[in-house]
Amino acid sequence: MSIALDAMGGDNAPQAIVEGALQAAPDLRSTLYLVGDVAKLKPLLPPTLPSNIVLHHASQQVEMDDKPLDAYRKKKDSSLLVACRLVKEGKAEAMVSAGNTGAASATALLTWRQLPGVHRPAIASPLPNHHGGFVIVDAGASPDVDPEHLVEFAIMGRAYAQKLMGRPNPRVHLLNIGEEEGKGNIFARAVYQLLKKHDWFAGNIEGKGMYSQPCDVVVCDAFVGNIVLKTSEGLAELIVDTIRGQIPANPVVRSLYWPVKKVLAPLRPSMDYAEIGGSPLLGLNGLCTICHGRSSARAIRNALLKTQLAMENKLVDTIREAVQRDLGVTE
Amino acid sequence: MSIALDAMGGDNAPQAIVEGALQAAPDLRSTLYLVGDVAKLKPLLPPTLPSNIVLHHASQQVEMDDKPLDAYRKKKDSSLLVACRLVKEGKAEAMVSAGNTGAASATALLTWRQLPGVHRPAIASPLPNHHGGFVIVDAGASPDVDPEHLVEFAIMGRAYAQKLMGRPNPRVHLLNIGEEEGKGNIFARAVYQLLKKHDWFAGNIEGKGMYSQPCDVVVCDAFVGNIVLKTSEGLAELIVDTIRGQIPANPVVRSLYWPVKKVLAPLRPSMDYAEIGGSPLLGLNGLCTICHGRSSARAIRNALLKTQLAMENKLVDTIREAVQRDLGVTE
Repeated sequence: MSIALDAMGGDNAPQAIVEGALQAAPDLRSTLYLVGDVAKLKPLLPPTLPSNIVLHHASQQVEMDDKPLDAYRKKKDSSLLVACRLVKEGKAEAMVSAGNTGAASATALLTWRQLPGVHRPAIASPLPNHHGGFVIVDAGASPDVDPEHLVEFAIMGRAYAQKLMGRPNPRVHLLNIGEEEGKGNIFARAVYQLLKKHDWFAGNIEGKGMYSQPCDVVVCDAFVGNIVLKTSEGLAELIVDTIRGQIPANPVVRSLYWPVKKVLAPLRPSMDYAEIGGSPLLGLNGLCTICHGRSSARAIRNALLKTQLAMENKLVDTIREAVQRDLGVTE
Repeated sequence: MSIALDAMGGDNAPQAIVEGALQAAPDLRSTLYLVGDVAKLKPLLPPTLPSNIVLHHASQQVEMDDKPLDAYRKKKDSSLLVACRLVKEGKAEAMVSAGNTGAASATALLTWRQLPGVHRPAIASPLPNHHGGFVIVDAGASPDVDPEHLVEFAIMGRAYAQKLMGRPNPRVHLLNIGEEEGKGNIFARAVYQLLKKHDWFAGNIEGKGMYSQPCDVVVCDAFVGNIVLKTSEGLAELIVDTIRGQIPANPVVRSLYWPVKKVLAPLRPSMDYAEIGGSPLLGLNGLCTICHGRSSARAIRNALLKTQLAMENKLVDTIREAVQRDLGVTE
């Protein structure tokens, strides 16, 4: 098993990407292809590489403001496209990138194509609640979709919840603006009618409910999903900043405020993108992990370990089989 | 100036509504019509009513599960419809209800009709950030809209920001999944093209940006707006619960955790719906304040005071004039 890492993608690339790869190497049970401009990568690496890291040259790189299709069509030797080709050629099973998200999604899609029966890829992002958390699908890949596509997101989200969250029989909720059948806009009502044919469908859930009730998979289109994700990130930061801002500057009084630091600490694992590492792009003939553009070395390390977990748990095969079974699709 | 209060609407009605009215009365510079079943209201009231509270009988009440149009058509003597009629007849300027939101919106719309040039009403909800907060429009009234309707929401949101938030020249952002022009789904891109004709348009804003950057008015359709609102409510509760849950039970250790309580307190005014009181339904020939179904007496009191502020600042007239000016509409 191998992972191809786009070493040139991300705000802090290649430095943070290389460091993250080195941090992950001891825990990786697979070969890691570090894909990028070898002349730029070598000075960042130790004289002797860990035995499971292999440098793989790519002369170009995708910039953050490159348009997704332009990146794919015009930069045929970009670290992103070369990493995707390693998967296409069977040399790697997964590709990890912290670069331009649109370009990474488009390049993975155009290089690998969708699994049979899947029309749109979707990003799966885990979010916390008091019941072990849930996964929201689609968190940003496909903003303009038809109701049918959300059924595919539901099936893919169930595979994620089974394989990466340990939920044996995940239920799916539709994110909506009311709980009862018949609530919502035209799109949500149409999705409800399609989802209710499946026994794993648990009905509508509201924005508040997903953070307070037990749930496994919450589906929505990427426009809504991305706004939920970013809104949550922004609000969590606002709350934590507001709390921290009240700790007095006077060192003597400040020392009495140690419990505040203590109670804030457990929020980090579920709200810090660097802990979460990255989110998989589901629905393709290959495993693609999309990382935050601002990824630190620690974020890259965690993304690589999470990708390994998805590989070892056969996430892609599980999705392929689930789509065949639930939608009656044959290859 | 008078306000008509639907005394029978809400999970805690009529008790909490009546109590809220009594709490608000000393601060109200207007007559308050307490609309509902007089036989049920009288036992909750003191023998001598405050001089500015007037009981107004209505024999029926809308239930939380009544369908909005059924409530309007079949319950012609409901406290909600009677309160709306008081406004229609010029006896009151504003109507306040904590009952069935859909029924309250539909009844106000059908009784009062839209202001000239406004096609869909919209709910304006204030949200906090480090820069004095912003208002999101539409937070729940009109889920299926055309791009043109969001321009109306923008104009109405600006009137709200001017009159109730003290922003002299409010800017409008479009809630989107990327900051640059051209980002978003088909709908958002179409809205952008319409909004950019106005000099108060400040471009796209992401879910994270509205909680971290200075902004006045953020527009979106009601499906997205309601999910933003409920997601924020749910996440804020999750964070505060997670923090509180770590305070040790042992009373001696617990006593050392007083700073946690202290730092959490300032979050309340901006995150507690009871403090905010209610949200106005903008765009109608009358002022309608929609309160949370779970409204306590304090929430009702605050909603009444906020409604008075909107009346005194001529929110409805401001919207009427702004629509005429910005969209070139004449009566």
